Amino acid sequence: MVQPNVAERPHLAAPASSPRPADEILIDAGRLTALVHDVLLRAGMPPDEAALVADALVLADLRGMQSHGVLRVPIYVEKIRAGGFRPGRKGRVIRETASTVLLDGEDGIGQVLTIAAMDRAIDKAKANGIGAAGVFNSNHHGEAAYYVLHALKRDMIAIVATNGSPNMPAWGGKTKMTGPLPFTAGAPTNKEEPFVIDAALGVTNRGKLIYMADRREKIPFGWGVDRNAQATDDPAKVLDGGWILPIGGHKGFGITMFIEIVSGVLTGALIGSAIRDLYNAPRELPQGLGHFCIAIDPSAFMPVEQFKNRMDDMIRMIKSSDLAPGTERMVIPGQLEFEKERNRRANGIPLSVKLVTQLRVLGAELGSDRTV
Amino acid sequence: MVQPNVAERPHLAAPASSPRPADEILIDAGRLTALVHDVLLRAGMPPDEAALVADALVLADLRGMQSHGVLRVPIYVEKIRAGGFRPGRKGRVIRETASTVLLDGEDGIGQVLTIAAMDRAIDKAKANGIGAAGVFNSNHHGEAAYYVLHALKRDMIAIVATNGSPNMPAWGGKTKMTGPLPFTAGAPTNKEEPFVIDAALGVTNRGKLIYMADRREKIPFGWGVDRNAQATDDPAKVLDGGWILPIGGHKGFGITMFIEIVSGVLTGALIGSAIRDLYNAPRELPQGLGHFCIAIDPSAFMPVEQFKNRMDDMIRMIKSSDLAPGTERMVIPGQLEFEKERNRRANGIPLSVKLVTQLRVLGAELGSDRTV
Repeated sequence: MVQPNVAERPHLAAPASSPRPADEILIDAGRLTALVHDVLLRAGMPPDEAALVADALVLADLRGMQSHGVLRVPIYVEKIRAGGFRPGRKGRVIRETASTVLLDGEDGIGQVLTIAAMDRAIDKAKANGIGAAGVFNSNHHGEAAYYVLHALKRDMIAIVATNGSPNMPAWGGKTKMTGPLPFTAGAPTNKEEPFVIDAALGVTNRGKLIYMADRREKIPFGWGVDRNAQATDDPAKVLDGGWILPIGGHKGFGITMFIEIVSGVLTGALIGSAIRDLYNAPRELPQGLGHFCIAIDPSAFMPVEQFKNRMDDMIRMIKSSDLAPGTERMVIPGQLEFEKERNRRANGIPLSVKLVTQLRVLGAELGSDRTV
Repeated sequence: MVQPNVAERPHLAAPASSPRPADEILIDAGRLTALVHDVLLRAGMPPDEAALVADALVLADLRGMQSHGVLRVPIYVEKIRAGGFRPGRKGRVIRETASTVLLDGEDGIGQVLTIAAMDRAIDKAKANGIGAAGVFNSNHHGEAAYYVLHALKRDMIAIVATNGSPNMPAWGGKTKMTGPLPFTAGAPTNKEEPFVIDAALGVTNRGKLIYMADRREKIPFGWGVDRNAQATDDPAKVLDGGWILPIGGHKGFGITMFIEIVSGVLTGALIGSAIRDLYNAPRELPQGLGHFCIAIDPSAFMPVEQFKNRMDDMIRMIKSSDLAPGTERMVIPGQLEFEKERNRRANGIPLSVKLVTQLRVLGAELGSDRTV
């Protein structure tokens, strides 16, 4: 059975003070960024792109989003060398209106292309109140929240949508053809920390299933199904050809489908099973992904300081809530990641010895004099 | 335990062929619209507003969204007579940019104001690719999908956000302060039926809890909590001061909070517990709601026929999926409502005898010569 105060609140289930596994070591964020930057440069990225991607990957690790962090460096290097990722593409304008733009990513770097799209959406929002930018022929772009954080620095409300290789069937089916895709958005604040949501629309995530399967723990029914679409409480069966269920069943699927519509159908990107997986496709093939960014300038609706103060008021109202049993404190979407980032900037990022070794070897192979 | 193939798919749990309760009768949609129109006219709405609201309420009943249908007529009449709803307000422009507009609803009729906002968003999208319109000082606007359907007729992709009186605490709290608000969006198609999602971000809905409580049935853990925020399988305890949980726990709450941000914080509307409930507030007080509409013109990204054909392709891909056990056919978000509408236009809308009597009495009291 789903215990709402535990099973549905995984971010509270693993307190920040939990002991670090023995196979992890703490790595300084600055040194890690320098190594990744140098590796990407030597793999063939121009300096500005290497700096952007290194910053985005390390920030994901700082924020506790390891699945979109530096563990992606080895595959990025492979894709660049094989031609699946093509550095130096900034997004070629295909169509443009006063408030929208469509970019052909020309198989470039996902982070570079999404920042290019968001920057254009922001410029158009500054001029006209709201702006939207789509990209097709793109690749993996890491943590989608990165582009929201970028927009928040310019006092924008932002939404980012992306599609991806399919891990889930449409609701009621058993042929994998879409997400669960993330719902990613944010809004700026004044004194309080910004609101940021970046939530994959699945009940759980693969990392958590792998962790529980390793420990032979059961999962609640409703988290996932086996390869025959049968309900199961065995995380190993979900991982072995099954899939994680969307939040709210058909509701989460419907939101995922809308995200696929704007990021994939509207941009002209590949969709569904036509998308090439980052790992399970030949390295020379680009992924064919699509992204869609919306920026809204709050000053089109009220003075921006007033909007940010209203955001503060809403957040304080939430933080002053009476606590439900099992809750230690009220947490606003995005807050735990900001707290983790501060902690890890000061104390280092816990990375597995295996990954650290892999990065050191990759750096040495490429002739880098940087290390961690 | 949550059985994904039943509990999370309530739209499949009640097949269209289920026998109609004995206390329901079939009412012709045309006659119902004429009666509601006349009642609203006599209550004080101008003819164009009465026609719009009658159409919107009856369409909700046709689509099976009874909770936003003609059962709202008696309270609307009370609110108009007491001054809480003020007919004749079309939305006064407070701020305008090339692609955005903010309207003061001046406590007008929610349907009138949201159509005004969506029409402006569409006009701006036609001119500039994307448009957004916010409204504050608004009231109950019925089924949010109505405004998406309106935009689909003009080949727009549309998103509608609204806030409402709070039925749910922030995640981890027990002070009610927001949704679950609906996620509402749509996209046009060519041969297939349009994609429409209009899903409240709660695991279930009050109507279903009332139905199950009446039959002394248990609900799965994870659907709701009691007034002390304790997990329960008793629907009566959820209804008695408890609340329905958001889909995906903190994820569904985060999406609800973003909807509150654009519809409430950004528009300058009331938010959280400051909003006046439609029923539990003095009739003379306006609700103070906010709405936010976005329209995206697909032709800013590709020829609109190409976009609509790509939508058809995606829908056909989904419909050709292998079926999971327990699934009779693949259903696209919005499809069941279109099917129900066709059926009910042909055969009548099932309404309770109690509601039909109430509408007849209301019509007679107001001197209407219409009836159903």
